[in-house]
Amino acid sequence: MTETTITPAVLRDKLSAAKGPDAVARSAAEERNAALTKPPGALGRLEELALWYAAWRGDARPRIEAPQVVVFAGNHGVTARGISAFPPEVTVQMVANFQAGGAAVNQLARAAGARMEVVALDLDRPTADFCEAPAMSDDDLAAALTAGWNAVDPQADLLVTGEMGIGNTTSAAAIALALYGGEAADWAGRGTGLDDEGVSRKAQVVAEAVALHAPETGFDTLRCLGGREVAAMAGAIARARCEGIPVILDGFICCAAAACLQAENAGALDHAIAGHGSAEQAHEALLGKLGKVPLLNLGLRLGEASGAALAIPLLKAALECHSGMATFAEAGVSGG
Amino acid sequence: MTETTITPAVLRDKLSAAKGPDAVARSAAEERNAALTKPPGALGRLEELALWYAAWRGDARPRIEAPQVVVFAGNHGVTARGISAFPPEVTVQMVANFQAGGAAVNQLARAAGARMEVVALDLDRPTADFCEAPAMSDDDLAAALTAGWNAVDPQADLLVTGEMGIGNTTSAAAIALALYGGEAADWAGRGTGLDDEGVSRKAQVVAEAVALHAPETGFDTLRCLGGREVAAMAGAIARARCEGIPVILDGFICCAAAACLQAENAGALDHAIAGHGSAEQAHEALLGKLGKVPLLNLGLRLGEASGAALAIPLLKAALECHSGMATFAEAGVSGG
Repeated sequence: MTETTITPAVLRDKLSAAKGPDAVARSAAEERNAALTKPPGALGRLEELALWYAAWRGDARPRIEAPQVVVFAGNHGVTARGISAFPPEVTVQMVANFQAGGAAVNQLARAAGARMEVVALDLDRPTADFCEAPAMSDDDLAAALTAGWNAVDPQADLLVTGEMGIGNTTSAAAIALALYGGEAADWAGRGTGLDDEGVSRKAQVVAEAVALHAPETGFDTLRCLGGREVAAMAGAIARARCEGIPVILDGFICCAAAACLQAENAGALDHAIAGHGSAEQAHEALLGKLGKVPLLNLGLRLGEASGAALAIPLLKAALECHSGMATFAEAGVSGG
Repeated sequence: MTETTITPAVLRDKLSAAKGPDAVARSAAEERNAALTKPPGALGRLEELALWYAAWRGDARPRIEAPQVVVFAGNHGVTARGISAFPPEVTVQMVANFQAGGAAVNQLARAAGARMEVVALDLDRPTADFCEAPAMSDDDLAAALTAGWNAVDPQADLLVTGEMGIGNTTSAAAIALALYGGEAADWAGRGTGLDDEGVSRKAQVVAEAVALHAPETGFDTLRCLGGREVAAMAGAIARARCEGIPVILDGFICCAAAACLQAENAGALDHAIAGHGSAEQAHEALLGKLGKVPLLNLGLRLGEASGAALAIPLLKAALECHSGMATFAEAGVSGG
């Protein structure tokens, strides 16, 4: 755990200094891929995943052996405005459920062979209602970024971040509107199950909040419109970028956190892929803004890292093929 | 292993007598699903998969603990007509590669926790060139169906079948044309990597073969246009139907085998889901004819059960969520 507080200024410097993928490992991985016992390109996107992962790990023949799932939880002042189908006390109840192993992501992480942690962020101190004031102070934001940064195990070889926070699709919609424009209604969806009237109220809240703050940078957007768990995901994804740990992004809220990083630094998400396209209406558009094509489209809309955790076995499988298969020469198979 | 020879007549009787899914288990699984700690429907297609699997296993809270992958291999007389990018000796070379653990499907089966067998069917005795004569005699067909039937472990709780056989996308295209009509060019694709001239030759071969035999039943289609590995997959999928073992279908060739069963008995594939949509051009149309929506679309076109094996972890994860999550009552979480 670092003693440094991860302020926006510190994080900007770290992202600027972060190394990119390893071209030598990439090239050696491409050579290996071309020699494996299959027609060229026959493993489709699995081949592309393996090459991308090999380059980020600096290893032409890697496997995934220490994946980490971290779920951050936070509470949102904006829930007072009736923008969620569930009451805010569900956040703390679900944290207990994560700790007891009873949530979906617990099952998915275990099935994927991943360790999982849950980091609850000041649940008894919701962020400010961002229709009235910035969601967080500078200190709140730095504390959340630091919590995210410190939650990442530098020995992990894959990171998945997720969230729990009643009200946080409203926060994510406001972030997307602030970063990309359009109409509030484009970004405000049903969340955990709002009815039409609720969705319309949510869009109104999102429009008001963005008009009030008009944030100009990625980190200012996080501070004014984010939540602690959203900022913590950004801190964790940035730490992974700096450590060369590939990331699988989860759904709409995780991608909104990631978008704030990309707004700060165009290469901040080069180490990240999209695990799934969620049923939350604006996720597809947000993925388009990030330039990411999801691995899975199974209609999940749960958050808590579930869609990304579900994708871990796919990425593992891509590496098992890449690193475990025989070459034509080893197997004595005639090439095409 | 049964002593009975599985002729088409025997198989028709067995399919007619096969039990369907268990409505009581389905109903209990639905009740459980509604009580789990997530918003209703938030796990999307994972919920549907869990309910389907529970019904077929007659168990409201099942897990997948003994998945089986079987790869059948056969050789095709039609390869003499230049319809594959690889020479026919690759079939036997790849069987050795499967046996040594070097192929893609070996890695994918291991990663999914599945046992895997390879069944080589008279590789030194290719089927007849079906532009000249039926690919198989009645005895050949029955032997291949029986081999498929016997390859299934009745204790398995999930079956994936795949194939290896240079030339077999030509066989699958001919089967699809015979069963569903259209133009030969609609069903003839690049296989392992044919160029435009090769694809055009392949479509011509497919058109000729179907015109020559004009088979009228699913099993006659298999006999005239199939291969031993194609018929064996049909035998295995039918055995799973009779044993109540859910199946994940693989790519174009596996689905062509399955289509022959569906032509014989409309409910023959109710126990089967589509693992992936392959890059082989006609797979999407064939899945449409079977009424199946694939779990994955990652551009694979390798055959050998690879796409279906890649989907095993998804189905396992669906069951882990369904059977492992806490209910709202157990976790003390407020419902929506």
